[in-house]
Amino acid sequence: MNKKRILAVGSVAFDDVKTPSGEVKDALGGSATFFSASARFFSPVSIVAVVGYDFPRKYLDLLRRLGVDTRGIELCEGKTFRWSGSYGRDLNTAKTLKTELNVFQTFRPKISKELKNCSSVFLANIDPDLQQSVLSQVIKPRLSACDTMNFWIKNKRTSLIRVIKKVDIFLCNEAEARELSGQADLARASKWILAHGPKLAVIKKGEKGASCFSRDFAFSVPAFPLKKVVDPTGAGDSFAGGFLGYLTQAKRVGEAAVKNAIIYGSVLASYNVESFSFDKVARLKRSDVERRVKQFAGMTKF
Amino acid sequence: MNKKRILAVGSVAFDDVKTPSGEVKDALGGSATFFSASARFFSPVSIVAVVGYDFPRKYLDLLRRLGVDTRGIELCEGKTFRWSGSYGRDLNTAKTLKTELNVFQTFRPKISKELKNCSSVFLANIDPDLQQSVLSQVIKPRLSACDTMNFWIKNKRTSLIRVIKKVDIFLCNEAEARELSGQADLARASKWILAHGPKLAVIKKGEKGASCFSRDFAFSVPAFPLKKVVDPTGAGDSFAGGFLGYLTQAKRVGEAAVKNAIIYGSVLASYNVESFSFDKVARLKRSDVERRVKQFAGMTKF
Repeated sequence: MNKKRILAVGSVAFDDVKTPSGEVKDALGGSATFFSASARFFSPVSIVAVVGYDFPRKYLDLLRRLGVDTRGIELCEGKTFRWSGSYGRDLNTAKTLKTELNVFQTFRPKISKELKNCSSVFLANIDPDLQQSVLSQVIKPRLSACDTMNFWIKNKRTSLIRVIKKVDIFLCNEAEARELSGQADLARASKWILAHGPKLAVIKKGEKGASCFSRDFAFSVPAFPLKKVVDPTGAGDSFAGGFLGYLTQAKRVGEAAVKNAIIYGSVLASYNVESFSFDKVARLKRSDVERRVKQFAGMTKF
Repeated sequence: MNKKRILAVGSVAFDDVKTPSGEVKDALGGSATFFSASARFFSPVSIVAVVGYDFPRKYLDLLRRLGVDTRGIELCEGKTFRWSGSYGRDLNTAKTLKTELNVFQTFRPKISKELKNCSSVFLANIDPDLQQSVLSQVIKPRLSACDTMNFWIKNKRTSLIRVIKKVDIFLCNEAEARELSGQADLARASKWILAHGPKLAVIKKGEKGASCFSRDFAFSVPAFPLKKVVDPTGAGDSFAGGFLGYLTQAKRVGEAAVKNAIIYGSVLASYNVESFSFDKVARLKRSDVERRVKQFAGMTKF
């Protein structure tokens, strides 16, 4: 039953976001949310997360309508995790105005018996000690992947490295790869990552595209060219969703599948940043995804 | 005799450059210089430019040693064109400290009888009226390409558009494409360019790679991943050199050749930014170029 199912553990949150294109308040956000909205095109997804009593039913309904299993989203007394950020004309870096952990502060992910046998696990950007606790609960997933952020690299380095040792795939952005490894060069930073355990290091580079490195090959793609970036929030998680979603349903996780997964990740991220929250991704059909993948391939193959 | 020869008209200059990696004074620079140092791997190149009495013989000797025909570099009373600039930690944009046109102020390119029959013409970033004058002197080149900069877009728009109408290939960077077309989206900006004459619009995007657009296809590549960028000066011109150099010797200028040319341009630009001036490109062998092209293909093909 859990063949090909992905367990995504991360945040489900309210986002207050301001970009040159406008602003939203109380928008549905969070790493597990963005991930799932993209991964669901390829594989069934179950979220494990926590929200507060203020979390509106319509957001849970929305996720369910997208086919996401929300039974693992715990309801807890208190307020839902909230992130407030703004982007200037340089859409590459968010300015975080506020991070209110709220109910996330005491979150201890409990993986149900059913989900322990999932095919893939995605450990979105949360405290590496929680990521570790998830890994210790699941039973031999075929694929495990984790993401992180600068805060954990700085403040929980030892815990983070312990998690990295145990996952198949480590995803992060350029700055994080450099900070973690102490190497300015991304190829060297990736070598450092691979030397610490993972079979694959995936570096998300925003409008510079994405690169991935294994012991046997390296692969880079440019970003899908867009008319307009409305809101970059969630780009990394929707990339991860497309990437791990595709890979989870692949028969063999070899070089060809990984390269395709990078394309799918790039395409989902490109759709995600074309609207606030994941409005556009929520309205997509699988055929839209395939159309852009074709366009992308046409633009980059030679 | 001028079969497959490229005529490059642009600046030969002194560069004073400061980057986080160090600084150089009186370094050999100029758009025609960077272009030629890269194009010479593929096709013979003749420069038409002007320098002052202060221009050292060793620089001319260096260009000649690289196989560049320097007979069209006029020696003129006065000082050589000088550009002073610095780059901060964001190596994407130069801060121009000084531009001293000097002998370039009265430069009127005269194309020798021999060079009028060249196979390709590269109009590097100079006054569009001078670019126009070169175009009117040459006799049906197989390929003509021009570059420009924000200054001409703003101050000589009509002249520039007249030149664009007549060339096969227009190269510029992202900001220039947007400013020229009034379109934020690069695909639309390129449509604007193609509607004004050229068969090909090539957009250089720095560390985001490069894209090109024709009426029939679009193509994008990421930047070649580098350990360290020492000095970005000349990246665009060395890209143009690799691109037009490759294309000039290609049997047929079709989609496949254009895509390969974009790869070669990217590779030459990547070598160029790994040292000040074009020190590294000057020491390269064709086999080094081919090696990196192979690496690049390996990293981007799927």
